[in-house]
Amino acid sequence: MEVLFGLHPIEEAIRAGSGRLDRISIARERRDARLEKIAALARSAGIRVALEPREQLTRAAKTDAHQGVIAFLRDRAFLSIEDLLVPPSDGHHRFFLALDGIEDPHNLGALLRTADGAGVDGILVPERRSAPITPTVAKTSAGASEHVRIARVTNLVRSLEQMKKANVWVIGLDERGTPDYMDFDFTSDCVLVLGREGAGLHDLVKKTCDHLLRIPMAGKVSSLNVSVAGAVVMYEAMRQRRATSVQPMTAPAPATTKKRKGLGSL
Amino acid sequence: MEVLFGLHPIEEAIRAGSGRLDRISIARERRDARLEKIAALARSAGIRVALEPREQLTRAAKTDAHQGVIAFLRDRAFLSIEDLLVPPSDGHHRFFLALDGIEDPHNLGALLRTADGAGVDGILVPERRSAPITPTVAKTSAGASEHVRIARVTNLVRSLEQMKKANVWVIGLDERGTPDYMDFDFTSDCVLVLGREGAGLHDLVKKTCDHLLRIPMAGKVSSLNVSVAGAVVMYEAMRQRRATSVQPMTAPAPATTKKRKGLGSL
Repeated sequence: MEVLFGLHPIEEAIRAGSGRLDRISIARERRDARLEKIAALARSAGIRVALEPREQLTRAAKTDAHQGVIAFLRDRAFLSIEDLLVPPSDGHHRFFLALDGIEDPHNLGALLRTADGAGVDGILVPERRSAPITPTVAKTSAGASEHVRIARVTNLVRSLEQMKKANVWVIGLDERGTPDYMDFDFTSDCVLVLGREGAGLHDLVKKTCDHLLRIPMAGKVSSLNVSVAGAVVMYEAMRQRRATSVQPMTAPAPATTKKRKGLGSL
Repeated sequence: MEVLFGLHPIEEAIRAGSGRLDRISIARERRDARLEKIAALARSAGIRVALEPREQLTRAAKTDAHQGVIAFLRDRAFLSIEDLLVPPSDGHHRFFLALDGIEDPHNLGALLRTADGAGVDGILVPERRSAPITPTVAKTSAGASEHVRIARVTNLVRSLEQMKKANVWVIGLDERGTPDYMDFDFTSDCVLVLGREGAGLHDLVKKTCDHLLRIPMAGKVSSLNVSVAGAVVMYEAMRQRRATSVQPMTAPAPATTKKRKGLGSL
């Protein structure tokens, strides 16, 4: 079980209502308005609150900087890459997101929120060099971090290769990429790979991409914030897929035709 | 002249290189590694640094919470709504942004950055109920806050009415709007109005809009972060305008034809 500590993170976790909060321990020795408030918040959210000796909290948190409160989080159930690749029952073309080293929790949260909004089929998050899914991420994601399908992968390049073998196009965003994302056809299975804030995609990841796309920049700034860049492309993919799915049909589709439902089925 | 105070904001302002920093005053009485660092940073950025009695800093900052350092910022040159409405020399269709109460400096910064990237012709920011353009905003905007054309307006509704009279469509984003933004034709002069984080557009502003558009949400979350939502629509407008401007021509355009250059001319 994960342990969270400190007044602010725990209050945030309770307010975010993530559902992963199992129980909270408060130091018996402390009497403090904020601790009382957290206890009340937790109880009204149906979370068990225990009073325990301060040193027990220190042992569980592995630090004495817990400000008198720790929380136990149930482990998140991550998916495997194989889970993500299970063909959807309605046969829609899939759109995945892969995050190559997004370390800012606000960017990660915003990306998960947008991925939920754009109907992304799954998100690949590397175990290392990535912000963990903390209460801040959960909060910034407006709760989406609990809904979207996330696979934690140990080696992003290997996972992308695996997706390639399953006929998924690997599309990176890169300032020097070509063509512009708006000239790319997203109406087939693909995975959009977003790189680090500032430094962009790692070299090996970049080499794994089938295409590198660029977002046109009309002004003086050379790039968009990564969560904004990701959103712009996720929604363009949604637009294209939806446009495909509402194309007028002159005859009823045969029963075997895969409906391009997917992102357009809103 | 604006006065900025405190170690962190001033260090940030110097690093952001906004060009508005006129000079810095450091309390003569204090000796402190961070103050030394700020002085060195400022000097290497060509900004004048003066040592002054601490009480003089307190008088200028109107607080004694200045941590021994204050900075004087040259006033920003804001445009008027009339400036924004001056027809562009190349006759391109214009796309403006109007911010109805964006109070988070990170959202404001991200929006200015994206507006620069998407080639937005000007941004309306109300004097009240909006984050001021602080060094944090400048930094989040990656410097775009210094490049984009901003008009500070006292009354947003009145300014939008003024734009309407100049044949600019007023388009609001709203969770309950219709149609979806991707089904809207942006190839004429328009201004996109974005509302508050959480509460959305003010009622009067909403009533002023010619159209209310919606961003489709495929998942469980009901809306996108405002800076993400704005980006998705700004770039869709750019895409449509560009698509219009690169339409194949069968004959050379007559000299009087307005070239739809604008956002598509990258």
